[in-house]
Amino acid sequence: MLRIGLLGAGRIGTVHAQAISDHPDSTLVAVSDAMADAAARLAQAHGAVARTSEDIIADPDIDAVLIATPTDTHSDLIEAATAARKAVLCEKPVDLDLNRALASQQAVAGTGQPVMIGFNRRFDPGFGALKSAVQSGEIGSPELLSITSFDPAPPPISYVKVSGGLFRDMTIHDFDLANFIMGDVPVTVSAVGTSTVDPAIAEAGDVDTAVVTMTYKDGRIAVIKNSRRAVYGYDQRVEVLGSGGLLQARNVLENNLVKSTADGVISAKPTYFFLERYMPAYRAEWDAFVTAVKTGSAVPVTLEDGVAALALAEAATRSARTGIPVKLEEILKPVAK
Amino acid sequence: MLRIGLLGAGRIGTVHAQAISDHPDSTLVAVSDAMADAAARLAQAHGAVARTSEDIIADPDIDAVLIATPTDTHSDLIEAATAARKAVLCEKPVDLDLNRALASQQAVAGTGQPVMIGFNRRFDPGFGALKSAVQSGEIGSPELLSITSFDPAPPPISYVKVSGGLFRDMTIHDFDLANFIMGDVPVTVSAVGTSTVDPAIAEAGDVDTAVVTMTYKDGRIAVIKNSRRAVYGYDQRVEVLGSGGLLQARNVLENNLVKSTADGVISAKPTYFFLERYMPAYRAEWDAFVTAVKTGSAVPVTLEDGVAALALAEAATRSARTGIPVKLEEILKPVAK
Amino acid sequence: MLRIGLLGAGRIGTVHAQAISDHPDSTLVAVSDAMADAAARLAQAHGAVARTSEDIIADPDIDAVLIATPTDTHSDLIEAATAARKAVLCEKPVDLDLNRALASQQAVAGTGQPVMIGFNRRFDPGFGALKSAVQSGEIGSPELLSITSFDPAPPPISYVKVSGGLFRDMTIHDFDLANFIMGDVPVTVSAVGTSTVDPAIAEAGDVDTAVVTMTYKDGRIAVIKNSRRAVYGYDQRVEVLGSGGLLQARNVLENNLVKSTADGVISAKPTYFFLERYMPAYRAEWDAFVTAVKTGSAVPVTLEDGVAALALAEAATRSARTGIPVKLEEILKPVAK
Amino acid sequence: MLRIGLLGAGRIGTVHAQAISDHPDSTLVAVSDAMADAAARLAQAHGAVARTSEDIIADPDIDAVLIATPTDTHSDLIEAATAARKAVLCEKPVDLDLNRALASQQAVAGTGQPVMIGFNRRFDPGFGALKSAVQSGEIGSPELLSITSFDPAPPPISYVKVSGGLFRDMTIHDFDLANFIMGDVPVTVSAVGTSTVDPAIAEAGDVDTAVVTMTYKDGRIAVIKNSRRAVYGYDQRVEVLGSGGLLQARNVLENNLVKSTADGVISAKPTYFFLERYMPAYRAEWDAFVTAVKTGSAVPVTLEDGVAALALAEAATRSARTGIPVKLEEILKPVAK
Repeated sequence: MLRIGLLGAGRIGTVHAQAISDHPDSTLVAVSDAMADAAARLAQAHGAVARTSEDIIADPDIDAVLIATPTDTHSDLIEAATAARKAVLCEKPVDLDLNRALASQQAVAGTGQPVMIGFNRRFDPGFGALKSAVQSGEIGSPELLSITSFDPAPPPISYVKVSGGLFRDMTIHDFDLANFIMGDVPVTVSAVGTSTVDPAIAEAGDVDTAVVTMTYKDGRIAVIKNSRRAVYGYDQRVEVLGSGGLLQARNVLENNLVKSTADGVISAKPTYFFLERYMPAYRAEWDAFVTAVKTGSAVPVTLEDGVAALALAEAATRSARTGIPVKLEEILKPVAK
Repeated sequence: MLRIGLLGAGRIGTVHAQAISDHPDSTLVAVSDAMADAAARLAQAHGAVARTSEDIIADPDIDAVLIATPTDTHSDLIEAATAARKAVLCEKPVDLDLNRALASQQAVAGTGQPVMIGFNRRFDPGFGALKSAVQSGEIGSPELLSITSFDPAPPPISYVKVSGGLFRDMTIHDFDLANFIMGDVPVTVSAVGTSTVDPAIAEAGDVDTAVVTMTYKDGRIAVIKNSRRAVYGYDQRVEVLGSGGLLQARNVLENNLVKSTADGVISAKPTYFFLERYMPAYRAEWDAFVTAVKTGSAVPVTLEDGVAALALAEAATRSARTGIPVKLEEILKPVAK
Repeated sequence: MLRIGLLGAGRIGTVHAQAISDHPDSTLVAVSDAMADAAARLAQAHGAVARTSEDIIADPDIDAVLIATPTDTHSDLIEAATAARKAVLCEKPVDLDLNRALASQQAVAGTGQPVMIGFNRRFDPGFGALKSAVQSGEIGSPELLSITSFDPAPPPISYVKVSGGLFRDMTIHDFDLANFIMGDVPVTVSAVGTSTVDPAIAEAGDVDTAVVTMTYKDGRIAVIKNSRRAVYGYDQRVEVLGSGGLLQARNVLENNLVKSTADGVISAKPTYFFLERYMPAYRAEWDAFVTAVKTGSAVPVTLEDGVAALALAEAATRSARTGIPVKLEEILKPVAK
Repeated sequence: MLRIGLLGAGRIGTVHAQAISDHPDSTLVAVSDAMADAAARLAQAHGAVARTSEDIIADPDIDAVLIATPTDTHSDLIEAATAARKAVLCEKPVDLDLNRALASQQAVAGTGQPVMIGFNRRFDPGFGALKSAVQSGEIGSPELLSITSFDPAPPPISYVKVSGGLFRDMTIHDFDLANFIMGDVPVTVSAVGTSTVDPAIAEAGDVDTAVVTMTYKDGRIAVIKNSRRAVYGYDQRVEVLGSGGLLQARNVLENNLVKSTADGVISAKPTYFFLERYMPAYRAEWDAFVTAVKTGSAVPVTLEDGVAALALAEAATRSARTGIPVKLEEILKPVAK
């Protein structure tokens, strides 16, 4: 039974607490949060105790920590936890600052501890089935990937301001999904972003509608479409054209009811947002982490994967600002110095 | 070039006139109708002349007649036209009276002339593809056939009164479709009919909602569902369960547009009624008739097919009235005397 | 926290044990089974103890029992448990013998204890949404109900022999679903059943393919289609035609992936069988039971509902054997004596 | 009755000849082609005569010409025909050379004759319904347009070499469709093109897979995805995200049959190619032209529309080559000199 400390008792921490508790091989023993009340409430609900992050990380009886704190604390906590010989599952993104993330990567490497990044979409049954079908050659060689990712409604402006921008906050999932499906990172990234949903988002220096095009060294292309607002629900679709056909992972609908009236043939909407859509994915993600830690096998989403997605977000942010495509090596070169 | 006389210039006659004119191997030369004006107008629109039915049938320069007159004239016209050595395409049903239809069948047999019955659904691309798939064994051995056939709105009560009842007027299409798909006639027919759409239909002695269940000598079962009212359009679906799978012929929609809003995911409705849905079928039906006549091959829907469907309608009418299943041989036995 | 005893540790008992354990307001404390090993294994997995059914029923510290034993023990256990002042959730069917079930009903009435019957489909999200839409008038007045219910593969012949026959074993779910959706019981039941899937089923005295037609006092009609074999998976669909439109509850598919190749456009199959399809329904069913017991409100599926479904199964069995429609009052009359 | 001369008797000329003949208000009187045999055959099939293009244009009894000749002759023929006071329907693209097209535009303006460009997709029922829904505000304000346009198989390399490249030959349709749906031309065009389908296409200096992203002055974005090969058929889809929802125009399938087997749930493929998919569009396009000419109203797709699409193709070609986004005004500025 893995003994788990949860750092962060906010919305996503609450989701993870449930997955930890429900798993037969893990138990939640401690919760921390900057807001002590939140930590206490969540701890109590799961028979755990509220403690500080430092305490949790220092406790030799805790096997692993799940980091669900604000992004700007991720790198520090990853480093501290791995130094204390804990396995880590950290929410995305690794960091908003690529250099900081790369430094963490080096620090972690020295510890030999497993660090998994919480790119939950890799564990969505539909996307997983798509990846398997691509890998087994069901559509021959993949040539053109297309990801549609629309949120139902924009976040509060206060969140937008600290989010690192749409590419680091929202598209980061799609960058990782592209890396996962294509089995490679792109060579060039070209992005356009505009603000048509809400002028306040533009005033906050961010965009709410974007298209990112990426090319690969073997001539493949990927395109990501993002919007902060789809009034019909969470629109999460992926399609891949290959030499032997097309794969499409369609939306998950609220139910399977279809109503035909004088107004048309009406199906249910997509599930409202990520909690509804990706709950099975969060559980599968946690199961994959527990399995890797217990068996000593490699975690399925590495810190390197997290850094790769962050580098793409950095490239897209730069491309959208300058209007010029960015080579991924330009992003990584100054960093490598 | 086949020279065609059209008997009947009503709604369905107008449809056939267009198919005759558009076909490269047939030309419409004469039109008759009890209402002289209607015949004249339709004739003029196609460069034909208005004449009486007797005149048309007697004209040795006319190769074939298409009978689209009221049902109670069908048998007389079939007999007269075949006696005059004309090929005949006659609209369904052959007759409302099974004995009268059987007598026609005998009379026609003596002439050797081809008589085709206008069961247009056999020529619908979807149903045709379903039949082909059944025949080629794509779902193994068929076991359970289900036909859904709903009109968008009930006909006028004046029509209901002379229609012969729902089973002879509407279900007749489904009986023929069942015979076509199953490649056999059933052994027993069990029907229930009620009137929930419009009490005036009950007052006219008819039903507007019905279910017919038929069993076959080899244990297969077919079920037909009918309603005179589906406010969302013409609902025409067929499905067959077989030992190797399920085939479904779905509705034809008005267009391929899908709209997702806060109200749901909305597709177009099925096409409104038979003119919209079955226009391609009417053209294919006519082409099949022309081809059979020109090449001397058998017509694809025979007078016997028309009589078989009528016998099933008779059986269903009787079953719905008595509440007892009816054996098809009971229907045909007194007739055979 | 409700303390629960589970009677029966077979396949369906195992499903219920999980639902009981996972529910925040119930805990599994004891398990019984005719096979002691099975009871012990299941009890251990959930931190419960294996005991006899008598023991469990006699234990005043147990609040409720879930009966998942063979059907022929249901009535005895229902009576014993309610006499011991326990709330009961009993798997379907109540009994294979209608008179026995009616006797239980009387016995239970005297105790005032809640007895819920495990018609899980009422708790399926799709069917629930359909029921809600019917109730809220979204398709006006319902007129024609159609239930498609195909198993993926027939059960072993040994099971068929003791199952009570297709109508009591399989269609019983559809009878209850019809009663649930129509909000009434039918007046007449007409059934045809054949054996085309496997001749061994006919030799065992049962049918494997069936159609049941039911009429209601207000002219509505319901039709149920059953097959023991659909090689593509568990086919569970419901549609209702009403004066204002059509509602369809479609199948739940294994995933949302669609593959287009030179062979066609290929979606996933329906989920394989009831464990896959109805797991959410089992959990919702248990939650409804717990809520009813805790709040003292009426259980949502009563023993009377179980008896009504059984009476319809009895009527269908008789109709399929005699070839004659059966009035529900004929079934209930001799019983009422 | 409009008397029509058809210039060009190739594949697309043959399609147009049928539409001209079938229309009640137009008649095909003359056909020209560089290959005299082809002109003679097509003329004969429609009761027309084969003549030279010069002859046809000079004939005062011919009201309009349809230009379906090789692209490099379009501008000359448009100019000659309008100078001869004929109405013109010209196939896309107007020209491969933007300057030449702009010169034609000026020349035609002086004649006052109507020139319509054959962008058939505007007349596709699904795309037309989408445009109408956008215009009537059904999804609020459109924000993100996405066009998927895949051919079933690449054209012969000989054709690729003279086609002007993918953006002028294939994407030109999508550029016009974007202009049609968005009701505006974009400000910037960014394109990537690669050759993953066939290396011979790269050797011929062209690409076979491409993504074009366009931004509009009000912040809207459009993205076009192209491939020369989709083995499952002609993939032609459009979707628009707006402030009030999403519109999707889906593919037209070969039929409405769905087959469920142990392999999955299999629908028919999209129609194979443009002749199958767009035949109704070609007829509607011709009807729109005839109506405009007869009533003296504006043609629905102007020479200006053709030039606008060509300018976008020019911009995309340049962007794909340089790797830098291109402003549409840069394309039109040197031209304007």
